[in-house]
Amino acid sequence: MNKGERTKRFIIEQSSSLFNKQGYQTTSITDIMNATKLKKGGIYNHFENKETLARNSFTYICNVLMEIYNETISNKQSASEKYNAVFNVFIALCENEIVEGGCPLMNAAIEADDSKLYFEDKVMDNFNNLINLIKSIIEIGKKQNEIKKDLDPEHMAIFILSSLEGSLALSRLFKDKIYLQLVDKQIKEILFLK
Amino acid sequence: MNKGERTKRFIIEQSSSLFNKQGYQTTSITDIMNATKLKKGGIYNHFENKETLARNSFTYICNVLMEIYNETISNKQSASEKYNAVFNVFIALCENEIVEGGCPLMNAAIEADDSKLYFEDKVMDNFNNLINLIKSIIEIGKKQNEIKKDLDPEHMAIFILSSLEGSLALSRLFKDKIYLQLVDKQIKEILFLK
Repeated sequence: MNKGERTKRFIIEQSSSLFNKQGYQTTSITDIMNATKLKKGGIYNHFENKETLARNSFTYICNVLMEIYNETISNKQSASEKYNAVFNVFIALCENEIVEGGCPLMNAAIEADDSKLYFEDKVMDNFNNLINLIKSIIEIGKKQNEIKKDLDPEHMAIFILSSLEGSLALSRLFKDKIYLQLVDKQIKEILFLK
Repeated sequence: MNKGERTKRFIIEQSSSLFNKQGYQTTSITDIMNATKLKKGGIYNHFENKETLARNSFTYICNVLMEIYNETISNKQSASEKYNAVFNVFIALCENEIVEGGCPLMNAAIEADDSKLYFEDKVMDNFNNLINLIKSIIEIGKKQNEIKKDLDPEHMAIFILSSLEGSLALSRLFKDKIYLQLVDKQIKEILFLK
């Protein structure tokens, strides 16, 4: 990686955290200048405008997140362990461990639904990836006789993701993991054979 | 209501929709001037600053929403009808029928979790009201032998609210009510006796 590429990467890393915390529209180039200690020209040298930087930052943080999801589930054998691994990513997001500001997908979804974010397509793609990842865990669990046979993997994946995202927002608002933990308990009761 | 009170009310009504769509930080006094056709002085005459207006607008839209919830469930007898009434409010929020921009509570929660909104307390109060409202439906359903006796009303209310809020966000992002409908179907299977 040459110096220009390193600077570009550095800007994306710093911006992705800011955008996730404050929102893509609220975060200004001045905020990014302050975080990177770069001048405006130093930023626009790598990104033609704020929208391009925002899209690049969202793609970057989603790639980081999806890598964590994929890595953490790939070295587990049982569907139960794989599901727990997904749940632990939500706990990490609650505690600002992966990135500050909560789930990048949910934050962008809430911002995208009635404003032009210029990357609604990317938000949808990433949600579909996450739905498919949870769906694959359910399919494995059904094959391994861990998960109830009559459950529809896709419908259940959408239900699980919805309830985890909703309870993450509650846990972050109330600064209390109990919302995530209660939802996790319910999901396990629905999903797994005793 | 005198002229001053009518103007104050008009500003709050117009602003609450803008704030809900665009976010409390993103929406500027200029946006509110454009929406109300009032001059800056005409707005600051009624609200000392944007934060006061934002807090008033959030309180207003939450009162509207909670009145709708309370009214729509109060004239139903069965827990099943009451639950359906709550679900229909989510469908209405999905379709911008009550207010544009999705669920005011969820939008504010996502914005509040890592920025100073000056009314996190109000967001929490309103979420607690909504959890208690769903909890009361479950308690009625248990008494009326509609809902499974072994369910914990508060835990189940948190689970239902989390999954409805999460799926509302997905339905608004993908512009497809199927996410809400799938979650509704799952909730009914968990909740109600056959």
